[in-house]
Amino acid sequence: MTGQAECKLARPQCSVLHGGDVGSNGCMLRVPFDEVQARVERVLRALGVGERSVLAAKLIAETDRDGVRTHGIARVPRMAEMIRLGCINPSAQPQRVASFGALERWSGHRGPGNVAAHAAMNRAMDLAREHGVGAVALADTTHWMRGGAFGWQAAEAGFAAMCWTNTLPNLPPWGATTPAVGNNPLVLAVPRRDTRQRSAPVVLDIAMSQFSYGTLQAYRERGELLPFPGGFDEQGELTRDPAAIERTQRALPIGLWKGSGLSFVLDVLAAMLADGRATYEFASDPLQEVGQSQVFIALAPSALTSMDELDRIAAGAIDALHAATPIEPGRIPRYPGEGTLRIREESMRLGVAVDEPAWKALLELEQVRS
Amino acid sequence: MTGQAECKLARPQCSVLHGGDVGSNGCMLRVPFDEVQARVERVLRALGVGERSVLAAKLIAETDRDGVRTHGIARVPRMAEMIRLGCINPSAQPQRVASFGALERWSGHRGPGNVAAHAAMNRAMDLAREHGVGAVALADTTHWMRGGAFGWQAAEAGFAAMCWTNTLPNLPPWGATTPAVGNNPLVLAVPRRDTRQRSAPVVLDIAMSQFSYGTLQAYRERGELLPFPGGFDEQGELTRDPAAIERTQRALPIGLWKGSGLSFVLDVLAAMLADGRATYEFASDPLQEVGQSQVFIALAPSALTSMDELDRIAAGAIDALHAATPIEPGRIPRYPGEGTLRIREESMRLGVAVDEPAWKALLELEQVRS
Repeated sequence: MTGQAECKLARPQCSVLHGGDVGSNGCMLRVPFDEVQARVERVLRALGVGERSVLAAKLIAETDRDGVRTHGIARVPRMAEMIRLGCINPSAQPQRVASFGALERWSGHRGPGNVAAHAAMNRAMDLAREHGVGAVALADTTHWMRGGAFGWQAAEAGFAAMCWTNTLPNLPPWGATTPAVGNNPLVLAVPRRDTRQRSAPVVLDIAMSQFSYGTLQAYRERGELLPFPGGFDEQGELTRDPAAIERTQRALPIGLWKGSGLSFVLDVLAAMLADGRATYEFASDPLQEVGQSQVFIALAPSALTSMDELDRIAAGAIDALHAATPIEPGRIPRYPGEGTLRIREESMRLGVAVDEPAWKALLELEQVRS
Repeated sequence: MTGQAECKLARPQCSVLHGGDVGSNGCMLRVPFDEVQARVERVLRALGVGERSVLAAKLIAETDRDGVRTHGIARVPRMAEMIRLGCINPSAQPQRVASFGALERWSGHRGPGNVAAHAAMNRAMDLAREHGVGAVALADTTHWMRGGAFGWQAAEAGFAAMCWTNTLPNLPPWGATTPAVGNNPLVLAVPRRDTRQRSAPVVLDIAMSQFSYGTLQAYRERGELLPFPGGFDEQGELTRDPAAIERTQRALPIGLWKGSGLSFVLDVLAAMLADGRATYEFASDPLQEVGQSQVFIALAPSALTSMDELDRIAAGAIDALHAATPIEPGRIPRYPGEGTLRIREESMRLGVAVDEPAWKALLELEQVRS
């Protein structure tokens, strides 16, 4: 998922600021990680996020560093706009509102969602240190940006974890034509010690839609069909045509009725545990998508088992996965998160690959705000 | 999912013991619930399961009562055979082997899997009563039969819960042609008070394969195509032909690469938390599928929030789901578990719908064992 790997359309007219390559929807630039982080931090400080701009900017820069460009700097303009509109309160701090043993409820008070989620996972880990397992439900927060960040956060600290968020209704439930469930990303994380070169935690970060609308748009702009059916067309038939799905807004849940059900249950569980909003209570305008309910659960397997034994278990499963016969010779099946360390290393060596339009938008925001 | 609803092939030659109807793969019989439970209990007692035969038989009879006929009495002959082969130890009791606060590890010692799972969920709920959240990892157990049973168990006791099990490798991971991940059923449960007629807990019970091999077989025997692609054919193309998938053994994970990743992570998490076996350590013969690792997590939202408020949240989400525009007029989208109460009521009123061959096999087992 480097810029090179995704390069499909050469656009010779694009300008290259830092020595870039050409990506799927325009230019890819390579920008030093520290510069990405510093520029995001300046924008956030100017927006009123204060001292937590350091952490918020780090999370955003790490998202692009890990190759998840849809959820990093590309989201900063929307965040800025939501602060301007008063939807996100840049100075609001998450606060504990109820607790019972290893279960706590916090309110995000509609502050920046990524730092609130980071705090919630930290708190879940604190509870797991004390109780073996800890659960934090976070109400009234805002978009957490990249959910996987909080899986990596837990796994790198030695915890198994799961977390999820609800979203605005953007997916028809199974059997319906109108959106009534969210794509509610779900994250699961498995800690591993770095005992072998390029070993990494196992971190799964999946939304409940088979393809995001961002992905549909990218395929459409490239004039390509989806590799697999991604939704229904106007005739109600499964289709690989991204434009048809954009027209019907009938994207496919993962596993059809199964993902539709999973999405619904994650939503209700999050809203109940957080005593917060459920998907149906959100407006359909992403700029108004605030007040999400989220759940963060951390578990401490190392409280019961040595890290050596835990590493042995994970390594055995990974070796068996790698030993499956690949469809394309040489392309061994990968575990969730496996590619991330390689992208991360490349980003630190060559610079973070960013989309030129997203980078330009960030620089413009910096001009406006400074 | 009643016998009537599934009736596709009339088989006039079938005998009807209790006044039956004709099901998808032969006769459906209606048997009083108490008789189903009593006969299963007698078989289990004769197999050496002892006093726990009462609970084990109740769980099995309730599975058929709820319309999940693939996982109820239909599985008893396999369980009997596994006891005969020494794979299941009928008298083994689950035992706590390690604990840290609200996190415990138990060993099933390869006793009957459904009662061990029931005990593990009970223990997770005890921990949640004390700590707000509780997690029990169960190693070295055997097939839990119907996973949803433990979701209903928790939800009916007022707990939110999730649990999952690993299985033998029966699914190729994404990008591979040979099985290396399990279909690892995942169960999530949401408690609800019975405040409205026919309101029910929300209980999701999904395996990581889009269609089970049992479902593929049923479609093939009826000469029907699957309603959606369920795997790959010999040419490596997605297909709705059940026989082609049975030949290639390349069933589709839910959500393609997403379900493949989810299945892998659930397996590794279960094996790590339980310090038990992972999918790759199981033989491919279902009769040898013993030593599963399972995780049971219970949460007590009512420790923080009134049941009135929790009910309000769930009811709001359900109403919104029901308000989505249905594809077929009048067929409103349903939440996971919604149909179960109706089937349950019908089973108690008319008798439990059982497949005639499965019922006959049970009666034969009773003859042999008594």
